[in-house]
Amino acid sequence: MRIPIVENIMHTNELLASEIRQRLDQADVFGLNIMASPGAGKTTFITSTINRLQSHHPIGYIDGDIATTIDAEKIARLGVPVVQINTGGNCHLDANMLNPALDKLPLDEIDVLLLENVGNLICPANFQLGTHLNVLVASIPEGDDKPYKYPGMYRGVDVLILNKIDLLPYIPFNLDYFLQGVQTLNPNVTIFQLSALHNEGIIDWVTWLVEYYQTEKLKNEQNTIAT
Amino acid sequence: MRIPIVENIMHTNELLASEIRQRLDQADVFGLNIMASPGAGKTTFITSTINRLQSHHPIGYIDGDIATTIDAEKIARLGVPVVQINTGGNCHLDANMLNPALDKLPLDEIDVLLLENVGNLICPANFQLGTHLNVLVASIPEGDDKPYKYPGMYRGVDVLILNKIDLLPYIPFNLDYFLQGVQTLNPNVTIFQLSALHNEGIIDWVTWLVEYYQTEKLKNEQNTIAT
Repeated sequence: MRIPIVENIMHTNELLASEIRQRLDQADVFGLNIMASPGAGKTTFITSTINRLQSHHPIGYIDGDIATTIDAEKIARLGVPVVQINTGGNCHLDANMLNPALDKLPLDEIDVLLLENVGNLICPANFQLGTHLNVLVASIPEGDDKPYKYPGMYRGVDVLILNKIDLLPYIPFNLDYFLQGVQTLNPNVTIFQLSALHNEGIIDWVTWLVEYYQTEKLKNEQNTIAT
Repeated sequence: MRIPIVENIMHTNELLASEIRQRLDQADVFGLNIMASPGAGKTTFITSTINRLQSHHPIGYIDGDIATTIDAEKIARLGVPVVQINTGGNCHLDANMLNPALDKLPLDEIDVLLLENVGNLICPANFQLGTHLNVLVASIPEGDDKPYKYPGMYRGVDVLILNKIDLLPYIPFNLDYFLQGVQTLNPNVTIFQLSALHNEGIIDWVTWLVEYYQTEKLKNEQNTIAT
């Protein structure tokens, strides 16, 4: 007797992720899966992004955490519709958790969905969520060896945010070594160096995001017309 | 038909952990399981500890990582016997991985075994390794809300190292809020605030460790005589 375990979970997750993508596309919602180590500054990065983007493009936010609603409360204060997913100890979000969360958001009124994954550099890399972009927030204090030590995460993302660049003067961090590791694993990744806390470099990132989003939206509309 | 999964793994792990503890005690080796988020400074902390401790108490080191031997190579340069466990993507060490690693260390010549777990604030908390102390390395740049967000990890440790205190002037971090969270979850934890990179506060930690280790060793010997 054969008991399939991991392969089966992964396959089911991929099917669900592709359903989520369809649901987002039908509602004209552009989704970002934002991943990072604990304390890399995901929530501060999301806050800065919302502050720049919100007046042009309405935003929804889903927060994945093993416990507490600390992050969700911070984002709710910005006037954004928020849903909290407590994973109950699970080290990542999976696609299965998203449909009930999406049910609770006013998708018709949202342009961009920001999904904050559980703070973890390992588990979330293996579970696609059906979003349009996978974003990794890295940070200077984590050290320059992280691409080498967590290759699965660095390999699988579309955008890399290198956060907390304001701390570069106080920490030994070899930027060339870091970028070389990233380049080897993921030559097509788009990289932004910024300080979310001090709002440095946020405009470049949000400008890029809006352009990318509008191009994808256009493609999506053309596909719908063609079919 | 019932297919037991998680309970079974956990129970097996606990049995194996208690066997590991016996093996360490018989060899007169005091073991530390050192856990942290990626980039909290585990390896730098371990390096500083070795530099202070090594001349009095011979040390062994086991490094758990999902990929690479970067940390193991750093520690081997200090003249310490080193074994690398690559978990192949697994987000934590478990007791099952330890026996083959212990086979490769000269346990008779070692007083203290430093076990560096995979960088992760979630998964390692659930897997005892049979060590005498569970140690968490937290760091200032991770933020003051981490005890609240990762209660399982903060609840389960004997020692909390708050690392990178040299960065306090540059980062918003409310020390009272952090310590209040720790205190609520784990009132008996022993806390050290230090900067491993700048060797600040390492002497206090190593002095405490040696005293604790010698007290435990004495207890262990008295138990052996009594039985």
